[in-house]
Amino acid sequence: MGLSERARALVRPEVADLEPYDPGFVECRVNLSANESTWPRPPALERAVREALAATPLNRYPDPMANGLRDALAAWHGVDRSQVVVGNGGDELIFDLLLAFGGAGRTVLDMPPTFSVYDIYGRLVGSTVVAVPRDPETFEPAWDEVLAAARTADVAVLTTPNNPTGNTVAPDRVEALCEACPGVVLVDEAYGEFAPSMGSAAALLDRHPNLCVLHTLSKAFAMAGARVGYILASPELVDVFAAVRQPYTVNVLSQAAATAVVEGRDLALAAVADVVAERTRLTGGLRALGLRVWDSEANFVLVRVPDAHAVRQRLARDFSILVRDLSFAPGLRDCLRVTVGTPEEDDAVLDALRRILRPVPSSS
Amino acid sequence: MGLSERARALVRPEVADLEPYDPGFVECRVNLSANESTWPRPPALERAVREALAATPLNRYPDPMANGLRDALAAWHGVDRSQVVVGNGGDELIFDLLLAFGGAGRTVLDMPPTFSVYDIYGRLVGSTVVAVPRDPETFEPAWDEVLAAARTADVAVLTTPNNPTGNTVAPDRVEALCEACPGVVLVDEAYGEFAPSMGSAAALLDRHPNLCVLHTLSKAFAMAGARVGYILASPELVDVFAAVRQPYTVNVLSQAAATAVVEGRDLALAAVADVVAERTRLTGGLRALGLRVWDSEANFVLVRVPDAHAVRQRLARDFSILVRDLSFAPGLRDCLRVTVGTPEEDDAVLDALRRILRPVPSSS
Repeated sequence: MGLSERARALVRPEVADLEPYDPGFVECRVNLSANESTWPRPPALERAVREALAATPLNRYPDPMANGLRDALAAWHGVDRSQVVVGNGGDELIFDLLLAFGGAGRTVLDMPPTFSVYDIYGRLVGSTVVAVPRDPETFEPAWDEVLAAARTADVAVLTTPNNPTGNTVAPDRVEALCEACPGVVLVDEAYGEFAPSMGSAAALLDRHPNLCVLHTLSKAFAMAGARVGYILASPELVDVFAAVRQPYTVNVLSQAAATAVVEGRDLALAAVADVVAERTRLTGGLRALGLRVWDSEANFVLVRVPDAHAVRQRLARDFSILVRDLSFAPGLRDCLRVTVGTPEEDDAVLDALRRILRPVPSSS
Repeated sequence: MGLSERARALVRPEVADLEPYDPGFVECRVNLSANESTWPRPPALERAVREALAATPLNRYPDPMANGLRDALAAWHGVDRSQVVVGNGGDELIFDLLLAFGGAGRTVLDMPPTFSVYDIYGRLVGSTVVAVPRDPETFEPAWDEVLAAARTADVAVLTTPNNPTGNTVAPDRVEALCEACPGVVLVDEAYGEFAPSMGSAAALLDRHPNLCVLHTLSKAFAMAGARVGYILASPELVDVFAAVRQPYTVNVLSQAAATAVVEGRDLALAAVADVVAERTRLTGGLRALGLRVWDSEANFVLVRVPDAHAVRQRLARDFSILVRDLSFAPGLRDCLRVTVGTPEEDDAVLDALRRILRPVPSSS
C-alpha cells in the first residue's frame, strides 16, 4: 500500500515509491523482534535516571550539541568533546551523514545483508547505493570487491557486529577500508558492547580523519525509547554534523537520562556480561533443535528454520512471541532474527519452536 | 568559522558553505531570546506530566507514529488520526516536508523576513528558494507577487502569526495561496494559540488536500525541551511524512509528556490569556520609551531600537538579559525580538532599556 496518486505527483521521484512506515505495534507476551534489552536496569542506575528526569525542566530548548552528555561520552572514550556528536538515535546520525556526504551523483557503498536503513536513507537523499554482497555462508564482507568499490565511494558503511548476521570484522580490515576510500567511512558499532573482544574502530580515529564510529545507547544501555546515539570522529567531521543537523533533535529528557546512564556505565556494562552468557545458552538451545545458528557477537542470533515465514507467524499467533522475519531479504532465505531475551523469554522461544518444529504424528 | 578544507572537499556542494551550529548557550538572569514560555506550568498539569514521565519505560522503541498522542491531538482538533503526523519538534516536520516535496530542480516559495529555517532547510535539500519579501513597513506578504510565484512553486511556506514580525494574515489569503499553488502549502501556526481571533487554517483542510498546518507544543504549551510538533493535513500527505521520516524520531518520554499536556490542554490554554495580556503591557512599556513596536499576535514583540546590535550587547553584558538580535536580517534593520516573559522579566527588560537609552548627561 504505497502513496496515493496525488501524493506521488507532488513528491520528488526518489520518494514516490517509498511505503508509509507504520508497523502497527502488536501487543504480545514476548517481544524479541527489535534487539531491545528486556533485562531490568540495575536498580541504582534506574534510580539515577529517574532522578535526572524528575529534575529536568521542559520549557527551554535543549542544548543543541548536548554538551553535558558529550563531555560524559568524551571522558568515557578518552577523546575530546570536539570528537563527539550526539544524535536522536543512531538513525539521525546515519541520515545526517548520508545527507552531507551522499546525495545526487554520489555513491554509497553498502554490504548486505545488513541494517536496511543505510540503503533506504542513501537512496532517499538521492545517492547511488552500490551493494557488495557478503559471503552467503559466513557473511564476511567480500573484501577484494569491497576495497575496489571503496576507491570510488563517497561513503562506505560497515557494521560490526553486523545486524542481522552477528559477525564482526578484523580491525585491519576496517583500516584497509579507511585507506581505500577517499570519502567517509561509517563503522556502525551499535552492538559493539556485546563483542568485548572485538576492539572498537575508535582506536583508528587518530590516523583516519575520514572515519566515523557510530555507537548507540539503545542496545547495551537499554535506552531504545530515549533515542540517543553518538558518533566519534575527527573534529572536522563533527563540524559537518553540526552544520547539517537540525539543531534541537536531542530533547532535554533524553539528554538527562543518557547522561545518568553514561555516568553509571560500569553498572550497565557489568549487566551486559549476563546477556553475552545468555546468548551462548540460546545459541546452544536452538542448535539442539537441529537448527543452523550463526555465531553472534551481538544481542541477537540469526537462525535458519525450514519455512521461516510460517514459523514466525505461528510463534506470533499461537505463542504470542515476536521475532524478526528476514526470510524475504536477499541472502537470508528462511532466516529469523531472535533477540537475546531474559532466560525466561528465551525458554519460551525454545519451547515454542520445539512444539512448532516437532514432526506431526502420522494420523493413521 | 566554516567547515575545514578537508570537510568541504568531502561534502555535497550545498553543504560546503554551511556553518557548524553551536550557539554555546550563555548563562543569564533573564532569557527572552527564544520565545520559550517562562511562565510556570499550572500545577495540576505539571503533576500529570511528571507522573506520565515516571511511568514510562525506556528500553523499548517508541511507537513510530505516536498513535496515543496522535489520537489525543485528533480528538482536540476534531480530525481523524489519519490527518495527524507528530514530529521531533516542528523542525523535523519542516525538514521532512522539504525533503519530500522540495529537492534539486524544485522550488520553495518563502516570504522573508520570517523564520530562517525554511530557507536553510530548503537549500540544504537542494531546492531553489524563491524569496518574495514582505511589505517593509507592515510585513504583510506581497500578495500579488506571492500568488504569481506560487503558480510555479513545489512548496509554499506561510507563517502566521509570523516570526519575528508577529502579524497574522487573513484566512482568505491562505485559501487563495492553496488555490494558486499546484504544490504543497505549509502554514506554520507555531504561535497560533497566542492569536485567538486568528482562526486556524485547519478549517480549510477539507477543501485543500495540498495544505499542511504546522503546530507545536514548544510555545503555548511550554514544552520546547521535549521537542514535539505536529502537522494536520490530508491523509495522503500524512502518508508522505510517514514514508520519508526516520521512524523513531519522537522518543517515549516526549510522547508521554506531550500526551499529558494535550489531555490537560484547557489548563494550558487558560494560562495563554495571561501571556496575551502581558504582551499588551510589554508593548505599551516599550512604546512609552519612544520605540517603534509592531503589533504582535504571538508571544514576542519586534521592536526597533537605535543601534540595536549595541543595545543587545549591553543588555547581555550589563544586565544579564538575552533578547534576539535580528538587525543583520534583510528588512529588519535595528530590530530586536523580545519574548513576552513574566511581568518581572519584562519589567527587567523595560528598566534596562530605559537606562541604556536615556540621554547621557553631558560631562561638562
